Amino acid sequence: MRKISIFTIWLLINTTTFAQRTLRGEQEIISPEIHGNNTVTFRLNAPQATGVEITGDFLPEPEMQTPTGGNDAQGVAELIKHDNGVWEYTTPAPLSPELYSYTFTVDGVRVIDPANVYAIRNENKIYSIFIIGGSHADLYKANNVPHGTVSRRWYNSPSLNMDRRITIYTPAGYEQSKEEYPVFYLLHGAGGDEDSWTTFGRASHILDNLIAQGKAQPMIVVMTNGNSGQQSAPGESANGMYKPSFTDYLRMDGEFEKSFPDVVHFIENNYRVKTDKANRAIAGLSMGGFHSLHISKQYPDLFDYVGLFSAVVNPREDMTSEVYQNTDEKLKVQFAQNPKIYYIAIGATDFLFDANVAFRKRLDENKYPYVYYENGGGHIWKNWRIYLAEFAQMLFK
Amino acid sequence: MRKISIFTIWLLINTTTFAQRTLRGEQEIISPEIHGNNTVTFRLNAPQATGVEITGDFLPEPEMQTPTGGNDAQGVAELIKHDNGVWEYTTPAPLSPELYSYTFTVDGVRVIDPANVYAIRNENKIYSIFIIGGSHADLYKANNVPHGTVSRRWYNSPSLNMDRRITIYTPAGYEQSKEEYPVFYLLHGAGGDEDSWTTFGRASHILDNLIAQGKAQPMIVVMTNGNSGQQSAPGESANGMYKPSFTDYLRMDGEFEKSFPDVVHFIENNYRVKTDKANRAIAGLSMGGFHSLHISKQYPDLFDYVGLFSAVVNPREDMTSEVYQNTDEKLKVQFAQNPKIYYIAIGATDFLFDANVAFRKRLDENKYPYVYYENGGGHIWKNWRIYLAEFAQMLFK
Repeated sequence: MRKISIFTIWLLINTTTFAQRTLRGEQEIISPEIHGNNTVTFRLNAPQATGVEITGDFLPEPEMQTPTGGNDAQGVAELIKHDNGVWEYTTPAPLSPELYSYTFTVDGVRVIDPANVYAIRNENKIYSIFIIGGSHADLYKANNVPHGTVSRRWYNSPSLNMDRRITIYTPAGYEQSKEEYPVFYLLHGAGGDEDSWTTFGRASHILDNLIAQGKAQPMIVVMTNGNSGQQSAPGESANGMYKPSFTDYLRMDGEFEKSFPDVVHFIENNYRVKTDKANRAIAGLSMGGFHSLHISKQYPDLFDYVGLFSAVVNPREDMTSEVYQNTDEKLKVQFAQNPKIYYIAIGATDFLFDANVAFRKRLDENKYPYVYYENGGGHIWKNWRIYLAEFAQMLFK
Repeated sequence: MRKISIFTIWLLINTTTFAQRTLRGEQEIISPEIHGNNTVTFRLNAPQATGVEITGDFLPEPEMQTPTGGNDAQGVAELIKHDNGVWEYTTPAPLSPELYSYTFTVDGVRVIDPANVYAIRNENKIYSIFIIGGSHADLYKANNVPHGTVSRRWYNSPSLNMDRRITIYTPAGYEQSKEEYPVFYLLHGAGGDEDSWTTFGRASHILDNLIAQGKAQPMIVVMTNGNSGQQSAPGESANGMYKPSFTDYLRMDGEFEKSFPDVVHFIENNYRVKTDKANRAIAGLSMGGFHSLHISKQYPDLFDYVGLFSAVVNPREDMTSEVYQNTDEKLKVQFAQNPKIYYIAIGATDFLFDANVAFRKRLDENKYPYVYYENGGGHIWKNWRIYLAEFAQMLFK
């Protein structure tokens, strides 16, 4: 047989390809470049562009937080063009530890950073991301610790009369263990889906790290799709690759809340889990907080831990589902059963802040105990990751 | 308690936000728009841009196929600017059924389509995708069929002395069944990782659909990371969110092949599977075909089904691992055990075509039986999805 080293040819071809790419400049750009002092330089090779801006959540934010999923209210800065055609922006000060997201706007067109392969969809937009390590942001990294398993599977919901996609985190060691585990049901916000908490939310990384540090109990985390009319995240059902819009999701008709025992039933029949109230938690962000509030009072025997992260607390007036009626009576029943932790967290500039003040007053007036966590910032993923990490450490102890 | 309908305010805010977005034009663009006759219109709102091109694998391809992962050799067309600032390109003819990928180039900057949320990383680039349904491309869609589970988990490889990330597809019904399942090990190419076959490769959708149609046996599909120096896909290990480059991956030192029994051991100790040669298959694309060739002859007792998809067949001359030595003798041992199917598939314009001709000649000379599938096209994902669907239907019957 001829010994043609086609593989050598392959490598040669590739070398040529890379050289061409480098001539085009595409490959030599490093962006974002995180410097030793945690300032960050963003670069875009765009000799023909007339203007490049960066929009990011590390730039000064507008005061009003818009509530569409945590990534809209971002500041803007201009990149400066250098003689070589590369545009640059360097943050004037070091960035504090965080997972940040951003996009470029090139001659008016909003795009992700072509030099950064780390990009996540949030609702109907894709963002480039990067992490400045340190303190709480180290929880968001894939570290050298035992890793749990993240499964995308499907369950049947008889109440909603459909098969539905669900994301399940089982902690490292679950498969080999004979132990039964507690379960934490973690719900997304409006515009989100069963993928949100493991993408922008970094839930699997947060749990891997907290469990490895001994700060959280090993637990199963169940991330549902909270849009009652939807089987799955966009693109993963027979609806095909449609263009999602925020309003598609706004169907807060009480049906998801009513169907929630289907989820619990599925988990408790398919996983090696503890099945008592003391070993079930539920929490969610924004609309998911709303869901958690209403599910936990609708089914007061189910959850000993309830977390409302930047929660919508009041139903809109046209939401007439039975689930949203007689709230005072239902809360009375729920709190009579002494949930171990009822946790409320919100940022001081969140547009839902006043509504949460009013809701806490309602709890105070009835002497219902709760844990309250308030920080800065608004209705954003930065806060939801922090609340998740705080809340997860309180569970099942 | 005051009945503030903060939710109404929320919706109002959102309406305003959408109106603003619409004024900016970002939200009103539909792209890609697949027309009834399967022509497709692509649109980009870019009033300030001076030139917009589309690069896609549905456009006439250059003759030479570059081998860097299946998405480089794409044709280019220009979008035309309309008075409203929206650029458009409509394919001159209907597109045949396929999953297609593309990018825009806006004033020299390569970007994904901002109006299309369906985007996939391949190596170190992100591409927008869409599907034209019909015939084989219906296998790539999420259809209304029972869905398997896709898990990202970690296994320990004593041979490579590291924990490694792995993707595992278990078919619909696996969790409830008491049956033992056959296992198909499916390997990626150079530049890929354990995510490749479920993203660009659509492996979970292809298997869901073939199994639902009764065309493939229910089987477990195990998708490894074939880069022996790497724990996981970029961003999922303690190496952080580094910028991947194609050459990072090229470490064909025989170590992955030698370590493969670690994977088999992990699967057979953690899943309800059949553990005989007749119930194990291995296949891979390009470098993964090379791995499959060498693993299957290195461990001739393991696999009754071997698939080489556009495979690299010869080691580079400086690859001196014991794994790549004495190929003729090892093939003799392997074929003496009568593997049920040895499958070779390649496209007529693949840069590896001649090497595969030579390899088949080597098999012919020794009267080693194999199944050969040749089609048009080159070293591209289009072909690898087709080969997967072909090969999966032959397995375990």
